[in-house]
Amino acid sequence: MAKIPYKINLSEEETPRYWINIRAFMKNPVPPMLNPANGEPVPGEALNAFFCEELAKQEMNETDRFIEIPEEVRNFYMMYRPSPLVRAYNLEKVLNTPAEIYYKFEGTNTSGSHKLNSAIAQVYYAKQQGLKRLTTETGAGQWGTALAMACGFFGVELAVYMVKVSAEQKPYRKTVMETYGAKVVPSPSDTTEAGRRILAENPDTGGSLGCAISEALEAAGKAEDCRYVLGSVMNHVLLHQSIIGQETKAALDKYGIVPDIIIGCAGGGSNFGGLIAPFMADRIEGKNNIEFLAAEPASCPSLTRGRYAYDFGDTGKMTPLIKMYTLGSGFMPSPNHAGGLRYHGMSPIVSKLSDDGYIKAAAFEQLRVFEAATVFCKCEGTLPAPESSHAILATMEEAEKCRKTGEKKKILMGLTGTGYFDLGAYRDFNEKKMTDFIPTDDDLEKGFKTLPII
Amino acid sequence: MAKIPYKINLSEEETPRYWINIRAFMKNPVPPMLNPANGEPVPGEALNAFFCEELAKQEMNETDRFIEIPEEVRNFYMMYRPSPLVRAYNLEKVLNTPAEIYYKFEGTNTSGSHKLNSAIAQVYYAKQQGLKRLTTETGAGQWGTALAMACGFFGVELAVYMVKVSAEQKPYRKTVMETYGAKVVPSPSDTTEAGRRILAENPDTGGSLGCAISEALEAAGKAEDCRYVLGSVMNHVLLHQSIIGQETKAALDKYGIVPDIIIGCAGGGSNFGGLIAPFMADRIEGKNNIEFLAAEPASCPSLTRGRYAYDFGDTGKMTPLIKMYTLGSGFMPSPNHAGGLRYHGMSPIVSKLSDDGYIKAAAFEQLRVFEAATVFCKCEGTLPAPESSHAILATMEEAEKCRKTGEKKKILMGLTGTGYFDLGAYRDFNEKKMTDFIPTDDDLEKGFKTLPII
Repeated sequence: MAKIPYKINLSEEETPRYWINIRAFMKNPVPPMLNPANGEPVPGEALNAFFCEELAKQEMNETDRFIEIPEEVRNFYMMYRPSPLVRAYNLEKVLNTPAEIYYKFEGTNTSGSHKLNSAIAQVYYAKQQGLKRLTTETGAGQWGTALAMACGFFGVELAVYMVKVSAEQKPYRKTVMETYGAKVVPSPSDTTEAGRRILAENPDTGGSLGCAISEALEAAGKAEDCRYVLGSVMNHVLLHQSIIGQETKAALDKYGIVPDIIIGCAGGGSNFGGLIAPFMADRIEGKNNIEFLAAEPASCPSLTRGRYAYDFGDTGKMTPLIKMYTLGSGFMPSPNHAGGLRYHGMSPIVSKLSDDGYIKAAAFEQLRVFEAATVFCKCEGTLPAPESSHAILATMEEAEKCRKTGEKKKILMGLTGTGYFDLGAYRDFNEKKMTDFIPTDDDLEKGFKTLPII
Repeated sequence: MAKIPYKINLSEEETPRYWINIRAFMKNPVPPMLNPANGEPVPGEALNAFFCEELAKQEMNETDRFIEIPEEVRNFYMMYRPSPLVRAYNLEKVLNTPAEIYYKFEGTNTSGSHKLNSAIAQVYYAKQQGLKRLTTETGAGQWGTALAMACGFFGVELAVYMVKVSAEQKPYRKTVMETYGAKVVPSPSDTTEAGRRILAENPDTGGSLGCAISEALEAAGKAEDCRYVLGSVMNHVLLHQSIIGQETKAALDKYGIVPDIIIGCAGGGSNFGGLIAPFMADRIEGKNNIEFLAAEPASCPSLTRGRYAYDFGDTGKMTPLIKMYTLGSGFMPSPNHAGGLRYHGMSPIVSKLSDDGYIKAAAFEQLRVFEAATVFCKCEGTLPAPESSHAILATMEEAEKCRKTGEKKKILMGLTGTGYFDLGAYRDFNEKKMTDFIPTDDDLEKGFKTLPII
């Protein structure tokens, strides 16, 4: 076989024309969303008040295996995709491993992560529906930036409710979004009832993601030409993110490579679910025997220490109930946890596949995660996002096992993004000011007590 | 002919194995560097005290047309190269122009710019020579970051003298370099005689590039296993940057595309010289009739308003004399000028080609540059560096001319990097706090008075 190059290219003709809908391959259905008021399944139409119609349809779709990527979305993808699929020859050398390591790198666009893949699709459908405005929330800012880029492209107005303390700590994230034309509102704000209520109770609060969601939802509900969009967890977001896996599989197929294990970081699960999608479809149908490993932070361990239960998607308990691995909507990771992957729950699709035994999970402490990031950046060039670095550490451990056993495993890893806007965390790590935090069983019990009783 | 894709790929076999040495094609030689003490040409060996031997050889080489890229350097290139060559279909649509616009995007690596192309080569040769340590200076931080990445990869120690005010304004740039293992010294420092002298005279100074160069040179001169490296202006840097043009030409050749005009921003000239190299070689030999346009800031207009004269390369007048377009080594651009492109001189190669009539130049005011950047980022996705945005504005003007004349010109533009670390400037622009500054003739006269008399 020909030597595998550092990067496997795809021509424009070879790039995927379809997202893959993993739900349509699953033997056991993903349990439906429930109305917390009566415990009944939520009908698709009920989502239309807050979500775009096409996205609500995709959210409920469990039959169509492939969904065509609209031409305008595909044209946008073409500007920054296919994302690089890199053979990590230099990391292999440093680890002295017989394993082959491949990584799919989603950070070569201005949002710095995979989030743009869904943002551009969501804004496209919103525009098709004739909507003029969108609202969303953002914490660290990757999703807000991605959505601002997509709205700037399609000429749709956007209001981003950004957790106030984050807006203050990362003023440049705000600047990027504003440059693309978005309005950034530090949350809580006095522009919504929810915000005013919270400010009245606690004028000095730095805000929270739960509060920003409440404000974005309220603002979207006020106008007929406005809807709310979000960047992870939901089924339609995983659908769009399947472009990651589709491209990866098309590239690997050119060299006849089938991974032995696929490793991704998992917070809300959209990157992980997108990366594994076509491989998991084959796995379910018995066409391969790939292992799937979700790498999560030890400080927010929903898959490894959470419960598979119905829970609210937000801290404010405004959403329908979702069956997922969860730490309880009241769970908050320790403030010393850097970067994203701080969501209390997990994508219902990833959760169900985990419960069915297709996906394994492992949790990693952040000091070791940053050590792995430092090794990676020196030999592979790219400074990785803290989130992605969980997958790097898991990959390095797998490769080191291979060094001991002599196995020539093929490892595929998702490198979701860059750490260019997370340098405060790197500085803390370099200056040895970073610490680990692993919640005790008692800490977790407090979170579980916030689970609804149904 | 087949439709031209959004991005033209090169396979690993198609990527260049040779840098192209533009000097070996020039009909009129680049005037030699002169010793300021006696006005005599500087012999190549004299450079060895401060530069790596191989780099000094490349600096003087005017005969070899092609120089093989060492395998280890090429392997590193393979991790982040070929850089994307994008057909700007979306920008064309926004401008409603019949012109075809292509851009070569050098920002998809952690240094955020093309600087890495030369950094990795320079550190490779340093290691080959058995050197253990390097020193350099950095202002905005792109070069320092690129060199830190290269030194991290090859395991060579690095001390970066970073202009103190810049280190304070951009603490995260410092963090990136430190993460790759570099030592960052805010300059002026008390670690060198030059630094101590300046601090004694002016304890509160924020430093300058001239001072940082002096410190880096002094530190390099102290030890046998240490040398000084730099990231623009010099002939060997343009040689390494020719990878940009070599890749671009290989990609365009696949579709039989010959640009009518090539546009790049020009500060020290390394990106511009690298982008145009193979096209200029053909131009000199009468094989094409391409126009070459260097876009520079109106606030630091070396090509459009400078003199073609012998001058010092640094403010401290420590270097040999270089024949180049210059505003005088004492010229300082106004502090309200954002981003790079603030060097008083210009690459001797680019200068000679300009003097010979092969290169035209135009100067642009920064408010219009940032307006162009804002248009570009919305339709093409990427948030461009302020430096690159000079080329964007020049390209947009050219495309708008085509709209009026109906010409279907093929425009090739160099997009040197991203603006992710320049968001303070974007914020000022968004908040209408940015101003233009065009030096008066009197301002320029003051700079010219610092030219040496030889």
